[in-house]
Parts: sequence; C-alpha cells; structure tokens
Amino acid sequence: MSELRQDPLTRRWAVIAPERNNQPIENNQIEKLKSSFCPFCPGNEDETLPEILAVRKSGGSNSPGWEIRVIPNRFPILRIEGDLNKEAEGPYSKMDGIGAHEIIIESPDHSQDLHQLSFDQVRLILSVSKERMIDLGRDKRFRYVLLFKNFGTAAGTLLEHPHIQLNAFPIIPFEPELELQCCRDHFEHHKRCLLCDIIRYESLVASRIIVADQHFIAFCPFASRFPYEIMIMPQLSYHQAFFTEIGDLPMKALVSVLQLVLKKLESTPDFPHYNLVLHMAPYGGTIKLDYHWHIHILPRLTKIAGFELGAQFFINPVYPELAAKQLRETTV
Amino acid sequence: MSELRQDPLTRRWAVIAPERNNQPIENNQIEKLKSSFCPFCPGNEDETLPEILAVRKSGGSNSPGWEIRVIPNRFPILRIEGDLNKEAEGPYSKMDGIGAHEIIIESPDHSQDLHQLSFDQVRLILSVSKERMIDLGRDKRFRYVLLFKNFGTAAGTLLEHPHIQLNAFPIIPFEPELELQCCRDHFEHHKRCLLCDIIRYESLVASRIIVADQHFIAFCPFASRFPYEIMIMPQLSYHQAFFTEIGDLPMKALVSVLQLVLKKLESTPDFPHYNLVLHMAPYGGTIKLDYHWHIHILPRLTKIAGFELGAQFFINPVYPELAAKQLRETTV
Repeated sequence: MSELRQDPLTRRWAVIAPERNNQPIENNQIEKLKSSFCPFCPGNEDETLPEILAVRKSGGSNSPGWEIRVIPNRFPILRIEGDLNKEAEGPYSKMDGIGAHEIIIESPDHSQDLHQLSFDQVRLILSVSKERMIDLGRDKRFRYVLLFKNFGTAAGTLLEHPHIQLNAFPIIPFEPELELQCCRDHFEHHKRCLLCDIIRYESLVASRIIVADQHFIAFCPFASRFPYEIMIMPQLSYHQAFFTEIGDLPMKALVSVLQLVLKKLESTPDFPHYNLVLHMAPYGGTIKLDYHWHIHILPRLTKIAGFELGAQFFINPVYPELAAKQLRETTV
Repeated sequence: MSELRQDPLTRRWAVIAPERNNQPIENNQIEKLKSSFCPFCPGNEDETLPEILAVRKSGGSNSPGWEIRVIPNRFPILRIEGDLNKEAEGPYSKMDGIGAHEIIIESPDHSQDLHQLSFDQVRLILSVSKERMIDLGRDKRFRYVLLFKNFGTAAGTLLEHPHIQLNAFPIIPFEPELELQCCRDHFEHHKRCLLCDIIRYESLVASRIIVADQHFIAFCPFASRFPYEIMIMPQLSYHQAFFTEIGDLPMKALVSVLQLVLKKLESTPDFPHYNLVLHMAPYGGTIKLDYHWHIHILPRLTKIAGFELGAQFFINPVYPELAAKQLRETTV
C-alpha cells in the first residue's frame, strides 16, 4: 500500500509507493520494451488488468476489436480500495495512498500518436477522458483528477504505445492548488478570472499566440518555463472551470487546436518530447467564476537540475515570443 | 540580456536566457566534453573568465598553482551589470536578469569529487562558499543566494570537473520562499522554529536518521520526494538562519557529516547522481528564529514526468525509513 505524506516545510505531498519499484525504470529496460512485447497492443489484453471501459467495433470485453480501451494501471501510484486513514505523525501528516490510476490506450495502433491519429479518434479519446473524469468525481473520497500524457523518453514515457494517464487524488495536489490560490486571490481583489484577464491581454498583443479561434486560444505563456511551452484555454466567451462540462461543439474545436499545435510542435527541428497536463477545478468545490480549465504542453528540451529543483526557477533559453512566431509559421 | 518573468498563475519566476542556447546541452556534446578539453583544469585558466577569487600555493592570478578557484559563469543565467528595471506588462511582472552566477572549481583535480577530496579541501570549499555568499550579500540589489551542485549527467551536469554553483537573485526564488512562508506560519502559530520541531521529532523516533552528532543531523525526510533523499541541518543548540554565520567548529563538523553521507550515498548499489542545494534565510531580512538553514541532497534515480510537473506530486518508490536504514548501515 502506498502512503501519501506531506512535507511540512513546503506543504507538498509525496507518494511513497514501494510497488513502483517493480516497474521498469532503467533505460536499457525501456529499450527492451520498445523492441519487443507490448501489453497495450490488440491481442495482448490478458497482459493488462481487466478493462474499465472500452469502445469496440467487435469482440467481447478484454479481447481484440476495441477502438479505445481504459485499464487500471498495473503499477498504480494510488489504489482504489480502502479508506484514507488520515492521521498525524509527530509534526507530519499522512494518509493511505487511496485514489485511482487509469490508463487510456489511445488506439489499437502502436505507432500513431495524438498528432497523427484521425480527428474522430482524438475526439473519441477526449470524450472517453471526459467520461472517466466525470465518473471518478462520483467517488466522494476524491478531490481532484489530473489528466496527463508523457510523450517520449525525455518526458518519462515507459511504454511506447500511445496512452494518456488519469489520476484521481484524495487531496488537491500542490501545483493545481497553487493555481487555484492565485486565481482565488485575483478574483477576490478584482472580481475577474485571472485566466480570462490573461486571454484578454494575449489577444490584444497577439505576439505569443500560436492559433486562436472562436472557441480556443493556444499561446506560449509569458513566463514559459520550457522552450516552446504551450497553453490551450477555452476562449473568454466559453469561460469554464471544469473540462468535464465541455459541450460537443467546443470539443470538436479542441480536437482541432490540440492536433494542430502538436503537429506544429512535432514539425519543429527539435521534435521535442513533451508532457501534457490538463488542469481543472477540484471536484465538489463551488469554484465557477474564478478558475478556467486549461492544458499545459511542456516540451522537455532542457534539463531539470539543482537550480530548477532547489529554487523552482526554470531557465528557458527561448523567448516565448520567438517560440510562438516559429510555431505560428510552421506549416503542417 | 536575460529577463526575469513571473507567471501570475503560480507566482513562479522563470529566466528567459537566450545566451544559454550557446551552452552545450546535447548528450553527445557532454560526451565530447568528458573525453576532451576541460576549461576548469590547471593550465587552462585563459579559457574561463578572469577569476573572482582563488586560494593558491604559487603562481599569479589566472595561472596554475591554485587550490580552489572562483570564476564567473561564462553562460550566466543572471548578469551582474545593470539595473533591475522592474515593470509591469499587462497582467505580468518582469525585470532585467540581474544577479550573479559564479562557479567554485572545487580543486585542481579533474576526477576527485566532494566525497573523495581531503577533509581540508572540502573545508576550503565550504569556507570559500561562505565567503562568496557573504560578499554577494553586500550588493543591495540581491535578496537571495542559492548554492547548488549538480553531480552526474542525470542531475544535469554539463562539465565533469567537480564544481559548485552560486546564484544571487534580485528576488527570493519560489522554493525557498515557500519554505520561508511555511516556517513563518509555524512560528506565528507556535512560536517555535518548524525545522527545530522536525529535528526534535526525528531525534525522538530515530528511524530516519543516518548520522547525528553534537552539531549536525542528517536524515531522510519524512515526505522524501526522491529515493535516498537526505537533509543535513544544524542541531537544535546551533539553530541558525544563515549558513554564512557558521563558526569554525561547526564548519569542521559539517565537512565530516557531508563527506560521510555523500560517501554512503556513493556506496549504495545505485550510486545515484544527485543535486545538492543549500537553503538559508534571505539577505537583509530580519529572520532569525523562524528559519533554520539546511542542505538538501536529491538523488536523481527517478524520472520527472507529467505527474511531477503537472501536480508537483513526487513518486518515491523507497520508504525513507528503509533508505535511512540502508544508508546508516552502509560502511564507507
């Protein structure tokens, strides 16, 4: 059983997860995985835990014929069974590692990633993600759900077959809590959504915009931590705290903008590996006006060293305005 | 000129530093550097910027004969010349990238690192670090100084010759600010130093202690983010907010405990690369009782992926109690 522990010096939680030691983390093991057996490919359904959900053209549960498949992570960070058992230990706080850790296998195709799949397939991926995020929110133990994707070894991928991960947490993790705090403060002082203010300013100056339409804006953030960092947000008129409330029309627009920026990113000379993260408001909260869901795309071209870990100060060698110009002008 | 930019969504600063693009970041370039020319070795003094300080047995400035040498970083994140020019840009804050970025070349020996050097050499390194940190504090533009070291490529080292880096900042970076905030809150509520409370509890339970003496305690933190993570802190009776105020006797004790834990770390089967970071109170503040300087040693055996970046939730597969036991029992 994993354990959630809070560092009183930063109030950041860590997961102590001894089961994760069984997961392949060595580079040579990653190489081996690449060249050989894939547990996510059709025909190998028995090699994963039984599916939570699948959309299929043919076949029965846990057999080939699926178009998309959601499974529990075999090496979960957080487990679904049990109680939280929150308690203090001296000056510390801890609880059992309760939560959910699901994998959305994006398609049966081992070699086609998010930017290469068909429009309809990406729409299916995002719709199934939304459905799972709604379902996980029904469990009253959970406060937050994080959707993320690691593309490429520099971004920490362990299995090559394209997949998205979903984590439901019994607490709000540090990074979204930090964003929520800043947004709450801004709203309290100005009665406006901070992220709406950012959209207004970015639309005005335009220098950091990659692409914008009626529904979405994609831009390189002013204080980008990483070269070619991208944020995707619903437009002002679609202010929304929860991704899980997105409608059909904006969902189609999201598929387009997401695929477009990923294609552009993958067409740059650096072809960066990246982490993709979706942040939305926490489950069960009353937040509506002061938070605005969004996607971060974090290309991993730079190292995370003592400076970044010790100061949380990131060094970005590429001006966001230059990155945006380059991405804007990249044809795909 | 680099620029400091603050992300309003997290209040974290980033450095946009286009000069850093000239620095070798590709792995093959690192390999090349390893096998060939070293600008930090004696005889190559002309290949670095002129030294800020050196302790030498013989020779003149910027020539061989030195025992330790401090130079400005040729690819600085922050530059010493100029004014801050703080200003707003729409909803954002920015200032010029003013600060200092110095390199302390630990010894003339290319292949001996902190855990291998003589006691006297490490004492010299720490004394020179202290002296530089005091001197940088005389510049009224600077609010904070960070000492860090990247050991090994997994920890982001670019040059193999052992060296420590010092960064002076015009603002307090996010991570120490976060620690200071938590410590201030604790002091306000309880009138005790949070880190002293942690030392008291760790001494009581003993399970996470690696080594402790009259002057220092070294232990694996309760909520360690990384396997074999270590904190070194002055003992209760030596509560001190500033490393720069350390006396001669505790300095000797620090050399011993630092070398001992690094030797133990390097004797584990994993032989991890690591980042070392020293946190102290900010320059010019009135903080004395509520903050306690300390060293973090962060072994880099695990990946930083979407989960860590998107949630600031770190997955540690090794219980800190097990890590401490293993390090305690490792003979060196």
